[in-house]
Amino acid sequence: LVQPISVFKGLEGVYVTESALSLIDSENGVLYYAGYDVKELVERSSFEEVVFLMLHQRLPTSSEFTEFLKLLRRSQELEPIHIETIRKYAGVTDILSLLAMLIVLEGRGKIGGNSNDFNAAVNAVAKMGSFFSTIIRVRYGGDYIPPRRDLSFPENLLYMMNGEVPSREHADVLDDLLILHAEHGIPASTFASLVAASTLSDLYSSIAAGILALKGPLHGGASEASYAQALSIGSVEKVPEWVQLTLSEKKKIMGFGHRVYKIYDPRATIVKNIIARFMGSMNSEVKKVYEITRALEEYGEKYLASRGIYPNVDLWTPILYRMIGLPADSFTALFAVSRTAGWVAHILEYWRENKLIRPLHLYVGERPRKYIPLELRTGS
Amino acid sequence: LVQPISVFKGLEGVYVTESALSLIDSENGVLYYAGYDVKELVERSSFEEVVFLMLHQRLPTSSEFTEFLKLLRRSQELEPIHIETIRKYAGVTDILSLLAMLIVLEGRGKIGGNSNDFNAAVNAVAKMGSFFSTIIRVRYGGDYIPPRRDLSFPENLLYMMNGEVPSREHADVLDDLLILHAEHGIPASTFASLVAASTLSDLYSSIAAGILALKGPLHGGASEASYAQALSIGSVEKVPEWVQLTLSEKKKIMGFGHRVYKIYDPRATIVKNIIARFMGSMNSEVKKVYEITRALEEYGEKYLASRGIYPNVDLWTPILYRMIGLPADSFTALFAVSRTAGWVAHILEYWRENKLIRPLHLYVGERPRKYIPLELRTGS
Repeated sequence: LVQPISVFKGLEGVYVTESALSLIDSENGVLYYAGYDVKELVERSSFEEVVFLMLHQRLPTSSEFTEFLKLLRRSQELEPIHIETIRKYAGVTDILSLLAMLIVLEGRGKIGGNSNDFNAAVNAVAKMGSFFSTIIRVRYGGDYIPPRRDLSFPENLLYMMNGEVPSREHADVLDDLLILHAEHGIPASTFASLVAASTLSDLYSSIAAGILALKGPLHGGASEASYAQALSIGSVEKVPEWVQLTLSEKKKIMGFGHRVYKIYDPRATIVKNIIARFMGSMNSEVKKVYEITRALEEYGEKYLASRGIYPNVDLWTPILYRMIGLPADSFTALFAVSRTAGWVAHILEYWRENKLIRPLHLYVGERPRKYIPLELRTGS
Repeated sequence: LVQPISVFKGLEGVYVTESALSLIDSENGVLYYAGYDVKELVERSSFEEVVFLMLHQRLPTSSEFTEFLKLLRRSQELEPIHIETIRKYAGVTDILSLLAMLIVLEGRGKIGGNSNDFNAAVNAVAKMGSFFSTIIRVRYGGDYIPPRRDLSFPENLLYMMNGEVPSREHADVLDDLLILHAEHGIPASTFASLVAASTLSDLYSSIAAGILALKGPLHGGASEASYAQALSIGSVEKVPEWVQLTLSEKKKIMGFGHRVYKIYDPRATIVKNIIARFMGSMNSEVKKVYEITRALEEYGEKYLASRGIYPNVDLWTPILYRMIGLPADSFTALFAVSRTAGWVAHILEYWRENKLIRPLHLYVGERPRKYIPLELRTGS
């Protein structure tokens, strides 16, 4: 008796590694980073501290944090090769592709995995932030602005992008968004990073693999797609009809559903609470998208909640991204900046007991056949 | 009663998809591409035909093949942006990193997966060959040479690299090597490609993820490592002692062992048969590496065969790579050129019934804990 072979397509429900980085309590709708409720981290901690937490699975002491910030801020400075590369390609590539090229470039000549390479991990996070800001700045006709060591990571990100130190409010919103997207278990991007890392490729190559997986609309590209969806609906009044039509055509509504959460995404709740603080200061475009999104959530849930499909974080984040002035094609790239914290932490963790990731496929093709030379082949 | 959770680290023995592209008969030591024994394809077919076979799972008719070759050869021509990029970075990056950057660049602005996009798949294979040759040529002080439409893929690869049409023998050896590495199921590189593709990223981004995973010494980097190992042993006489010392220190011998094959790698047999044809024309460096490799195989097998560890293809390929004049740091990159055929075929195949790859991790970290502000934290 031969057991039938099970094919775990999509690896749904398959555990691929142990990790101490995050816990998704999908029943109670709580997300923890190394034991800390993300809601509490958003309220009380900073992205910089969360990067340390990811890398060490504990919060830093005062002196450790001072040292860490020195390293992080020094690493935010770009070298001539980065700046030249950005100047050359910012006008012709999407932001995410250029981020991937720059990170590959940063890993040039490197090979091998070292689970203690915290400096490279911090450098990767720092560089991603500066690459992001400088790409956008150059695209809009500006040039590289060196980071200021007296500014925090989110402050520098907006300062290097706009040339002005941002308001406290904008820097705080960005800090919250960076914390919120820093880590989320093993989605496709993190897994692509681990697959590359498991060959002992190198840290930067592995991060680049993550960036390239994040690009897709089924993963990191969802927030940009959700924003485009709201704009294309056009007005609140059209939402009920649009939802009915979309569902009757069995199409997906962007910003709904998640492989892991079968309840309301706790990150979406956090984002909505932040948005509530800024209701008064929204410009007309953001306000319109907000109203459409609220209606989408209401009508979408009415039809989808019974099937376990709830709004996710990508439904709501575009409003905050636009509020702090990010271009509509930069959301996925900002997600990549934030998630670099999770990627590097997962990679270093995996390298402590590395095992090459090498699955199998079930062969469903032709049985053995003989080669027939081209001149004797007939038909197809 | 709660079932303990199984963690499939490395996904050893886990089937992740169905595929009609290749069958590894590890018991009898035969590798099939879409039903054809690779040994027969190496003897009778060409890499160009194998690319068609991978994409369509059947051999072309005469008129189909004529059309296919037109497309492939036209796609081998590089555009100014490719040439400028190679000129700028060939001197500062390893070949594989630059290949990844160029392929990301080729995918700029693209998004989404289309299982019928054969033209993009052919373009990817064609461009990879021309990128490879031009990077090496520029590194050694030359410049881009346009491909000739009357030359085959392996002929063009050597012609664009060296500026001379290669001998029939060298082109044939390269053709054999390209066929031999075109496809091999779901190793880490192919899997990284599928993970990225499953987000509906895009074809080129997915290939780049594969290149970045191939880089590691536990995967594509093994042939370069095997060559360096032979050179570092230095002479045949030192092999027995070196093998004993290496095994007593529980270190790996490069070119031995494979996750799937528990017998002699059939590809290694094919490579050894090709080498046998050229025994007379080896230069002294290649001859020395050949002698060392032969001794390594003999002594290595003596100790390792009983543990199911046999020589693999990477033990022997470096001899052929060097024989046809490839630089010692270009083997992995040539592997990438060849494997692009397998990657694109797997990606298009996966997109026919796409499913996002999103596994889980088993959380082993801290239980929920309260955030303590920095100024109140003590010790570590």
